[in-house]
Amino acid sequence: MRLLRYESAGRVGLGVLKEGAIVPLTALRDHFPTMLAIIEGGQAALDRVAAFVAQSDETIPLGEVRLLAPIERPGKYMAIGMNYRKHVEEAEHLGAKPVSHQFWFNKQTTCLAGPYDPIDPHVSTQLDYEVELGVVIGNTARNVRVADAPNHVFGYFVANDVSARDWQFHSPTFTVGKSFDTHGPIGPWIVTADEIDDPHALTLRCLVNGEVRQESSTGEMIFNIWEQIAYLSTAFTLEPGDLIATGTPDGVGVAMQPPKFLQPGDMVRCEIDGVGAIENRVAQPGQQL
Amino acid sequence: MRLLRYESAGRVGLGVLKEGAIVPLTALRDHFPTMLAIIEGGQAALDRVAAFVAQSDETIPLGEVRLLAPIERPGKYMAIGMNYRKHVEEAEHLGAKPVSHQFWFNKQTTCLAGPYDPIDPHVSTQLDYEVELGVVIGNTARNVRVADAPNHVFGYFVANDVSARDWQFHSPTFTVGKSFDTHGPIGPWIVTADEIDDPHALTLRCLVNGEVRQESSTGEMIFNIWEQIAYLSTAFTLEPGDLIATGTPDGVGVAMQPPKFLQPGDMVRCEIDGVGAIENRVAQPGQQL
Repeated sequence: MRLLRYESAGRVGLGVLKEGAIVPLTALRDHFPTMLAIIEGGQAALDRVAAFVAQSDETIPLGEVRLLAPIERPGKYMAIGMNYRKHVEEAEHLGAKPVSHQFWFNKQTTCLAGPYDPIDPHVSTQLDYEVELGVVIGNTARNVRVADAPNHVFGYFVANDVSARDWQFHSPTFTVGKSFDTHGPIGPWIVTADEIDDPHALTLRCLVNGEVRQESSTGEMIFNIWEQIAYLSTAFTLEPGDLIATGTPDGVGVAMQPPKFLQPGDMVRCEIDGVGAIENRVAQPGQQL
Repeated sequence: MRLLRYESAGRVGLGVLKEGAIVPLTALRDHFPTMLAIIEGGQAALDRVAAFVAQSDETIPLGEVRLLAPIERPGKYMAIGMNYRKHVEEAEHLGAKPVSHQFWFNKQTTCLAGPYDPIDPHVSTQLDYEVELGVVIGNTARNVRVADAPNHVFGYFVANDVSARDWQFHSPTFTVGKSFDTHGPIGPWIVTADEIDDPHALTLRCLVNGEVRQESSTGEMIFNIWEQIAYLSTAFTLEPGDLIATGTPDGVGVAMQPPKFLQPGDMVRCEIDGVGAIENRVAQPGQQL
């Protein structure tokens, strides 16, 4: 299933994509008031939602609503850097040090935005894009072994790890320049794990104004998704609804010669075959928000 | 006021310290079910709580309850590194680079623990302490000027920024080794901002088994609290209940010659004059939790 959240006439609803339109889950609201409630409900919740969707004949055209980030504010949004070999090479040309372990930072959860929401450059003059496969944790993960990690994934989404490079490099910890408000667009929905045969064989792409800037396969990850979950959950508990951005391939703007940063008006499209696409326009600083 | 959370007979309550005992706020539960509700209620909420406490004659001895972290799971828990000059010097002796900007990382909110809860070393063999003054954000902060920052502080607490140095230095972003479960003890309560004349003139101390390891003044911060709030809120929104750990002074175990890490059984006491003290015993890995 493709589970989504939308806003219509000022109200927030949950829905499921069916033949290109939204089946609203309004009738299940008492059981599943939030996406997190569905996630925490596990397979029984998914079965119930699927059964409802199969018999429902109410649909809303996608174009009539605003899609929201497909999950409410999660407990954490972790992101891994330097996780595709060619991206590591382009970063090392810029002076980055080789990494010996998984390289994690936070995107503050306040940065989350909808799949078609505008991106505000705010005080950054070095705005950049990073397409990434996103993972939603399905159940509590603590000291998870690599072999068991797939059991902890609820689903997948497309993420743009928007980066204010000037602020990112204020310090080696990255987080402040990774977390500007609106710099975490995700979506357009969560594709449940059962629909993705192999999350390490997906083509992902980033286009700016139609020009392909990044194109790779999730098979090129240095630390794969299962290793990421094992590593993180050795340090701390991952909870249902926690988000992980699994790294970006080469082709980011800051590594171009000369660097090519995003400008107001630019349209950034991040897409992953089999998952979906998100499109976010760069706003004038402080506007359209 | 000193606002706290406690657990008694399996139930969680809010309370206020009065003459060394707890005045439970059970009667105000409908209005203030959580600490966050009090924070979001602003001055009117504080006035109401104060009036209730003044006329209440019900008290619970501190020794009869377990104190909890004085706030429920916040949206974010930010921490600044390299923010006391002598600590920067000891870190540079260990190979750290000088910092040009504020140096921020996350403590994952899953690491929060009560003021007397045990610390689990888990897989770390380089467990260390860091006493810090903690700040609770009182209202939404976005693009806040230094001069206005005090208006966004709800109160203060004592934090131990427990650090798994081996995992911290897996990567320059710090966060994974700063966020082990139980590695964020805070408390023992929140002292409301009106009770702290000058948060930059507080003596803070860390003792291990009674031996003073750290002792300094919050006046020694390189970037003061107001500058911290201004910087962070320029990048992203700080929300009511968000927590900030404002940096640790020199004297950490990893910088001793030779390094002296925490061992199971050690008692770590972090105290700040005018705020309070927290005491956390180091457990056997994986035990007592």
